[in-house]
Formats: sequence, C-alpha cells, structure tokens
Amino acid sequence: MGRMKLSNINLLETLNSPEYLPILATFSERKARKKEILFLPNHYENNVIIVKKGKIRVYLAFDDKEFTLSILEPGDVFSTHTRAYTQCLEDCEFLVSSAENFRKIIKQYPSFTFNIIQVLGDLLHNSITIINGLVFKDVTERLVEFLVNAAEEKGIITEQEIKLNLGLNIEQIAMLVGASRQTVSVLLSDFSKAGIIHRVDQRTLIITNMELLKSLGS
Amino acid sequence: MGRMKLSNINLLETLNSPEYLPILATFSERKARKKEILFLPNHYENNVIIVKKGKIRVYLAFDDKEFTLSILEPGDVFSTHTRAYTQCLEDCEFLVSSAENFRKIIKQYPSFTFNIIQVLGDLLHNSITIINGLVFKDVTERLVEFLVNAAEEKGIITEQEIKLNLGLNIEQIAMLVGASRQTVSVLLSDFSKAGIIHRVDQRTLIITNMELLKSLGS
Repeated sequence: MGRMKLSNINLLETLNSPEYLPILATFSERKARKKEILFLPNHYENNVIIVKKGKIRVYLAFDDKEFTLSILEPGDVFSTHTRAYTQCLEDCEFLVSSAENFRKIIKQYPSFTFNIIQVLGDLLHNSITIINGLVFKDVTERLVEFLVNAAEEKGIITEQEIKLNLGLNIEQIAMLVGASRQTVSVLLSDFSKAGIIHRVDQRTLIITNMELLKSLGS
Repeated sequence: MGRMKLSNINLLETLNSPEYLPILATFSERKARKKEILFLPNHYENNVIIVKKGKIRVYLAFDDKEFTLSILEPGDVFSTHTRAYTQCLEDCEFLVSSAENFRKIIKQYPSFTFNIIQVLGDLLHNSITIINGLVFKDVTERLVEFLVNAAEEKGIITEQEIKLNLGLNIEQIAMLVGASRQTVSVLLSDFSKAGIIHRVDQRTLIITNMELLKSLGS
C-alpha cells in the first residue's frame, strides 16, 4: 500500500527460522494502541523496529501538515533515528532493538545482513519514486499512480473490474499522495462521474476502467 | 554539496586498506569525460559504482525537466539500478562492480558490509530530507537551506563573512533545489540587494549576513 512497502523481503520470516533464534531473543516485544505515536523524530535512542502485527504509519509533519512516507505492515523494518514520526494505524505489536545491538547482529550474521541491505535498498528506491512524483507529477497523476500501484499489489480482479479494498480513508490517501483531503475528494468524484471508478464505501472502491485510469497518469 | 552527500563514510579509504585488497581487485576501473552520461535509469546490468576522482551528478529527468538528487564525490557509492541518471560534472574516474559480485563480497566481509549499511542509511536519511523540503518548504526556503548547509559543510569563515565556493552555476543549483534557473537567479539577486549575500563570480558567493539568511529559511 505505502509506496515504501517492502513487499519482497520479510524480516519476520527470516527471524523465525531456527538459525536466527538467537537474534530474535535480543529483541524486546512491545504493544501499542491505535493512534499511539511510537517514536518522535530524531529520537535520542536509535532503535530498529520490526512490525509483528498491525500497521504503522511513517510520516513527516510540519505545522498542521502531514506527509505519509510509508505504511509498514508485518515483517517490515524501520529505524527510529530519522526525522519521521511513527504512529499505529491500528492496535499493533512490534519488535524493538537498539541500533547498537543491531550492529552486533550484523557483524555476526552476514546473511541476515544481506537481508537488511535489500530492505534499505528498497526503501531508498521507493523514496526516489516519491521524489520523482513530487517533482514531476501533479496531484492527479500522483493519485492515479497510487491507485494503479495499489490495484496491481492487492486488487481483486472480478470480470471486467478490479475491487480495491484500500483500508484507508480519503484523508489517509491524501497524506500519501501529498495533497489536501478536499482535492483528493474532488478528484475521486471526478473519476467516479467519468465512469473510471465506483466507490463502494469509505475504504473500498472498484476500478471499472483501468485503461482510462492509467491514461490520466502520464 | 549534494543533499545526498555521504560525508562521514569513505568507501575508497576502506577499500584501500590492506585487508580489503581482494575486494578492490574485483572492481574494474573506468574513466569518463565531463558531461558524459554513465548509466541510463534502470540499466539492465545492476552495477555498483564508487567514485575515485571528479564529481558525478545523480538526477531524475522527465521531459525537459531535471532534478538533482545528489552530487557524488570521491569515496561515494551508488547503484545504477534506480530510476536515476548518472552524469559526470567533470572528467572522472570510478570503480564498477556487478551487483552480483557485490553480493558475494558482502557475504565474505561482514565489516565492509556494515559500511554499506551506513552508506544506504545515510542516502535514505537524505532522501527523506529532500522529501521534507519538497512537501513543506517553498523555493526560497529550500534555497536558503541549501546555502546554509553548503556554508556549514564547506564555507570558509573570514572575519564576519563566509566565503562559499559552490563550484555550481545557477542552473545546477536550481536542479538541486527543485526550481527554475530564473527563479533561483531572481532570489539570489534579492538576497544580494538585501545585503545577505555578495556574489563574487558565477560559482562563488560570500554570505555577509548569516543570521538574516537563516531567518528566511523557516
């Protein structure tokens, strides 16, 4: 869903394999409630977190504006030592380790390390995609890109249509594409009137004309 | 200079230490001329490059617009497998290795690997800074941030002034802050008229009032 989603590598699976049990033991487990903010930007402790359950939003904030960099799902990893906030979108569980401990692990388990490099490479790749969108695309094109990617990632194809259970309300979509809630609302209404999408409820829509949707994105 | 500058870690120094000579031997050395484009986006071969001499610009392009992500200097590393272009700003020399070879190295030399993780972490951190600037700051604020960072990184303090040899013309600055050449030109003239900076030549300026400059950035 998030543009920084790490779909290919799941650190949680790696950690649960027998050879990595000693690593798993060095993490502590924590729970947090929906809407709870986990770490503030540039948190004095540099921690590494791995999501076990639920969704964690990683976002930038300035005055009353917010921009979502990523929505982490189980298996995803992140470091708290950035200028980003981390907040639970729903009740969640996650593993925490100090960066120092993480550094020791990396020295002892080279193959685990390669996993981390892939994760970081993916995050970097996706952040370059975000920059590309912000610099070269307008809000319509960014919204189209978001919907097309989401459809390819988790859309359910039924006959001529694609059902998309986004699990995000309009405000949450707006913060992912870097636009106001109002703008996204108007654009989705326009798409709906043009016969491109059909909105089922707050968090679900059906893409009825994927070709036309894609044509608006370039 | 570039906002993705990796000032703290120099892979070239690491590679030149005796224990890493076997790694160095697996890289091939290449030269390229000023303005030459080294790799196109999503190059079919996934290569890792390390700059030996000169400056390499990493940038995104769309139609006739360009946005500079980073200016790599000796010791900096980058992967060609992104949507970014790489181009020599001056005659340069660099080391190349296939990502596959790099993968083998990573498995054999855990401490070198930690170096790579730091580099990727830095790149990610800086790309988040770029996103933050694009989402929350206007062009004036981004230009101020760029000048203040450049002054802190490489400014020469003389009496009350800071001399800044940017080594970049106005167009190159514009592509770093995500603005047109004209806009940056007008802003620099405004700063000059307000007694904040004094332009010595095309690529050098003196910051005469750092306090006032900083106050425009927030």
